[in-house]
Amino acid sequence: MAAPPAPAAEGFGDRVTVAFDALGAEAGIDAVAEGLSMAAADGIGVRAFGPAAALAGVGSGLVEVIDTAEVIGNDEEPVRAVRSRPEASIVRAAADVAAGASDALASPGSTGATMTAALFALKRIRSVQRPALAVQIPAPGRERPLLMLDVGANADARPSHLVQFAYLGSAFAATVLGVARPRVGLLSVGAEAKKGSTTVVEAHEALLGADGLEFAGNVEGRDLLDPEVEVVVTDGFTGNVVLKTIEGTAKAVGDAVRRAARSGPVAAAGGLLLRPALGGLRSDMDPDATGGAILLGLRGVAVVGHGSAGPLGIANQIRLAASSVRERAVERTEELIESAGAGRSAIRAAKGSES
Amino acid sequence: MAAPPAPAAEGFGDRVTVAFDALGAEAGIDAVAEGLSMAAADGIGVRAFGPAAALAGVGSGLVEVIDTAEVIGNDEEPVRAVRSRPEASIVRAAADVAAGASDALASPGSTGATMTAALFALKRIRSVQRPALAVQIPAPGRERPLLMLDVGANADARPSHLVQFAYLGSAFAATVLGVARPRVGLLSVGAEAKKGSTTVVEAHEALLGADGLEFAGNVEGRDLLDPEVEVVVTDGFTGNVVLKTIEGTAKAVGDAVRRAARSGPVAAAGGLLLRPALGGLRSDMDPDATGGAILLGLRGVAVVGHGSAGPLGIANQIRLAASSVRERAVERTEELIESAGAGRSAIRAAKGSES
Repeated sequence: MAAPPAPAAEGFGDRVTVAFDALGAEAGIDAVAEGLSMAAADGIGVRAFGPAAALAGVGSGLVEVIDTAEVIGNDEEPVRAVRSRPEASIVRAAADVAAGASDALASPGSTGATMTAALFALKRIRSVQRPALAVQIPAPGRERPLLMLDVGANADARPSHLVQFAYLGSAFAATVLGVARPRVGLLSVGAEAKKGSTTVVEAHEALLGADGLEFAGNVEGRDLLDPEVEVVVTDGFTGNVVLKTIEGTAKAVGDAVRRAARSGPVAAAGGLLLRPALGGLRSDMDPDATGGAILLGLRGVAVVGHGSAGPLGIANQIRLAASSVRERAVERTEELIESAGAGRSAIRAAKGSES
Repeated sequence: MAAPPAPAAEGFGDRVTVAFDALGAEAGIDAVAEGLSMAAADGIGVRAFGPAAALAGVGSGLVEVIDTAEVIGNDEEPVRAVRSRPEASIVRAAADVAAGASDALASPGSTGATMTAALFALKRIRSVQRPALAVQIPAPGRERPLLMLDVGANADARPSHLVQFAYLGSAFAATVLGVARPRVGLLSVGAEAKKGSTTVVEAHEALLGADGLEFAGNVEGRDLLDPEVEVVVTDGFTGNVVLKTIEGTAKAVGDAVRRAARSGPVAAAGGLLLRPALGGLRSDMDPDATGGAILLGLRGVAVVGHGSAGPLGIANQIRLAASSVRERAVERTEELIESAGAGRSAIRAAKGSES
């Protein structure tokens, strides 16, 4: 007797199908519809949890809408909200992945609710203590990606957690970002191994002995925009502050250039002539370009998108989820963590130094 | 029998005199000479610890050179170096302040050695547990200053330390920066009191009960360039990473604009026309503009300058030290910390939550 086909295969054949929280976007349902159409145009299947009426007919048959009206807001306590509201869009979308109806989760909604729903529904990879939120840092003119983690899943982190983040980030960069041997840096306040907080100094020592990693030593704040590494690890507090600092600084400098270009007729003429050449900078710094963050360390793919994403950002959230499935990011992360006991030995080393 | 006049008064009358580590600047002795001349032109007395031959005749009688050849480098362990090398320029300059021959210390040399020499020679204010390094964050178009501390004196900080940093920063902003009632923010990952690391959440609670402070709640990384506060407190690890991230991001965006302006003849013409209007942005983001960081919480003034400072930066390090003396920053900080038991009650509150 043949096994029943998985629900995802039933709906869209061999396509990758992404469960999408269509109620979470700040940009509104029209932007969501446009983003879903863009993702569907790439051949990605989407199961969208949101208003069926508003999304009817979107995506030429590749977008299936599961009518959902309930949403968890940014101001709600995530764990309580996810536990108590099974009908909320993010909870239903995460359950859809757990049930096998979709292959991956993506949501531009509340970061806390998305992370919580994903963790509850998808579970951690065995031996991963703490999943971490990873994001590509925007930077002008950078050729290789820089993946930073954790940017907010764990406000407190132990040395052993930082070591695991190094494995998680390395595996993701190798699979989804296509970096052959990703170099991993540890965010600190100086190059020397003894520089930094107690936690960072201990993590540095543990990383030096971690098998299967290209540990490249400490990196500093100023290196993040012109790095010698492809992955940088830090605790979720520092990572979140740093990510927002980069966004704020880039915006402030960009605003100042725009103000200068409005300061008089000569400057305005200069601004007009320079404007086309600045297009690359604008798109390099656009948070929509990367699709948002991804929660690493789970037994499934969960993309935590920018709440402020426009249509392109929404499409890219879904694309990032789909390519993570296609590249077998979760399976290959599990392999790296399990292989040669690499994860466990480094974690033991870090735990030894913690005690 | 009259008391003997203090050495500083002997040399320069009522002038403020700054002991300057003239061997620490990366820019070399000619830049130092030019910076000393600029400070002297403001009527500030300088006792410069460096090469007498190279600095002879600088500063029209207001610069006294104490011939010194030994220097502590960036790569030396600060505590050991300061303890074992009494003839090093930074150690002699700090001792000069302790002996009353100078009124304040300024150095563009090794940050660690400068902080250590200052701490050993000048001592802490009574009831201050940890001195903190404070710096004005550069930002385009900002009208009011934003002082951030700690940016590197303490890689690990407890909630009680963060509370004390709030008092130290508030007192400095009120005296030297001329802000009537400085609002103090706590750097975190969200506005809510419960957001952040365990340390930050406890510090938030303690700050809510701290007398004599205008605590304005949490600020995020993206607020640092457009803040609603005049002082922001954080641990020295996060502060250092954030400061360097701002510098790195501003540089990367500036470089990208310059690259765009070289990308073709039309863009180049635009760049030329826009260039004069961008002068304000360049000077706003110039680290030399503020003179560097200041170590708060000591019973004396110690300016920890940028090692890469040019002549203007060196002059501004000395100016910052002199104005801190003139504004009685140390005395007024002591008054604020001692007044109404404000410091102690907040520290008790924080300590209670730590236990």
